[in-house]
Amino acid sequence: MKEIRKDPFTGHWVVFNSALRDKIFEFWKDRHYETPKIEKCSFCEGNESETPSETMAYRHSGTQSNKPGWWIRIFENKGAVLQPDEDLDRHPIGMYDVTTGFGIHEIIVETPKHLTQLEELPFGQVRDVLWAFKERISALKKDPRLKYVTIFKNFGLGTFGSMEHSHSQLLATPIIPRKIKDELMQSKDYYQDKERCLFCDVIKQESRMKERVIFETDNMIVISPFAALSPYEMFILPKKHNHLFEEINPPEANDLTDTVIIALKKLAKLLSVPPYTLTVHTAPNLINRPGYWSTIMFDFHWHIEISPRLYRMSGLEWGTGFFFNPILPEIAAEELKNTVI
Amino acid sequence: MKEIRKDPFTGHWVVFNSALRDKIFEFWKDRHYETPKIEKCSFCEGNESETPSETMAYRHSGTQSNKPGWWIRIFENKGAVLQPDEDLDRHPIGMYDVTTGFGIHEIIVETPKHLTQLEELPFGQVRDVLWAFKERISALKKDPRLKYVTIFKNFGLGTFGSMEHSHSQLLATPIIPRKIKDELMQSKDYYQDKERCLFCDVIKQESRMKERVIFETDNMIVISPFAALSPYEMFILPKKHNHLFEEINPPEANDLTDTVIIALKKLAKLLSVPPYTLTVHTAPNLINRPGYWSTIMFDFHWHIEISPRLYRMSGLEWGTGFFFNPILPEIAAEELKNTVI
Repeated sequence: MKEIRKDPFTGHWVVFNSALRDKIFEFWKDRHYETPKIEKCSFCEGNESETPSETMAYRHSGTQSNKPGWWIRIFENKGAVLQPDEDLDRHPIGMYDVTTGFGIHEIIVETPKHLTQLEELPFGQVRDVLWAFKERISALKKDPRLKYVTIFKNFGLGTFGSMEHSHSQLLATPIIPRKIKDELMQSKDYYQDKERCLFCDVIKQESRMKERVIFETDNMIVISPFAALSPYEMFILPKKHNHLFEEINPPEANDLTDTVIIALKKLAKLLSVPPYTLTVHTAPNLINRPGYWSTIMFDFHWHIEISPRLYRMSGLEWGTGFFFNPILPEIAAEELKNTVI
Repeated sequence: MKEIRKDPFTGHWVVFNSALRDKIFEFWKDRHYETPKIEKCSFCEGNESETPSETMAYRHSGTQSNKPGWWIRIFENKGAVLQPDEDLDRHPIGMYDVTTGFGIHEIIVETPKHLTQLEELPFGQVRDVLWAFKERISALKKDPRLKYVTIFKNFGLGTFGSMEHSHSQLLATPIIPRKIKDELMQSKDYYQDKERCLFCDVIKQESRMKERVIFETDNMIVISPFAALSPYEMFILPKKHNHLFEEINPPEANDLTDTVIIALKKLAKLLSVPPYTLTVHTAPNLINRPGYWSTIMFDFHWHIEISPRLYRMSGLEWGTGFFFNPILPEIAAEELKNTVI
């Protein structure tokens, strides 16, 4: 089965060819990820002095900042790619555009114990991780210099300096990332044309067609996107339209917690704990900044993308942005749906 | 040194942070690529019966198709992601867009002997590889169904089923790949504004500033792009404006051969034979298809991109399209310039 599909959310085209499906499993079987073992883990409770000072933490009452007694802890990344003490200055260099390295790069430690998989934590702990995402995004969006706050998780990717202790990262930037801009533009064009939300329409169509729905809860639906960029990719979409992830309320957060745990457990079971990337997609920050982006951001629909990363991008994907995926989303959805956890 | 730079060719933003530079080398030192050893190589001279029939070859006179006696040989990829015998049909599925899996996916074997590195081949052989690229692109562009012909090379990437015998790939598609579209749009916008070519202006600015020029020849210039997406990325640009790679003439091809050999030798020497992606960027195919793309393609400027691939994309890059590069292009250019081959 060969087909080229267009991703409605970004405009990318993806080639599907299920004939190559066995090859990826053969490849994947031999190459399970390895995370460097670190003797003393600075993310563990008790080692707070090994990290920068916390910017936020959920702690038991009576405990002190940067001491034990927390269950979620957030601090600046030691190897931060951007820094809060730089001045924000956008300027040209000849015909080029540059922005100083102003921004915030934080680590969100998801558990005080040395556990590695988010989906193995208790329900309340995962809910608080998601709640910490929400609180931290809201807090940082008070700074009008920060146009976007990205929350992402690199699990098992074996990139340089990665820690195995379960954690996510936050990067707040004076710039809206390219993929978010693409999604904003596609949502805007769709809304202008139809006066309906692109994501809401996808949810309605997928609910009717059923073949790419992995599971759903009261508030959330999990689908294999029609033009998934990677094998077994999952999108978690809230059924109720909202452009801001950080506006979820406690019942929605509970529901999302179940959803994230189930999705990650299915993935871990089906593919033997594969490396993956999880990214929260929310609308940009427009506090005190009316203008073009603020008029179109209501057409956006927040969601979470989980992309297994079974192999490195090929030269084709890297060089041209034309993606290849050997697993059809309908097959991926069927297998994930049938994976008993 | 921290800075966020905008890539003028695609509009992507890239974060540079040289503080993390040592980490990547430490990471890279431990993780040299491995290509699967294949006992009997079907790309070697004498094993022609192991591959599909050749679609083009440079052969000694008197030799037969699909027999020994060739020095460059092109045939359909056994694991082709697209196939020429599919009908081309573009259609909707509900709100989605689909194209049948029509296309051409070929292997260009760059040497009859079992050699692995393009830059180690003799000058005449490398020139003929580039000439074969040109001839094959021209031939395929006679088919109006094929909107774009991509030539790319995956060296040492260890993706599934990759062969170590030196080869490139060709993918001709009924669709213009996303990154090429981005470059076409950026070139068009720039030309509309300035009435000058974006790439020609970059060449002029880089020649004046000097700090990102790695080397140049009579007809070509090799630069570290201002917002390189990967460490030690190199762009080979022809000094004379032309949107079509396939229009190079024999003297230009000779000059390009020298350039490619020097660029790859410097890379191999400086980084101990790193995996890389090489991609030829040329204008789309518009035979018998006047319209929007045909009006703007003259603003494009063909070039070759060489991207070392020292690590997997992080979740940030994958999830948001916001890139991170620990090596400033000026430093990369200096090091590559000083690498004696």
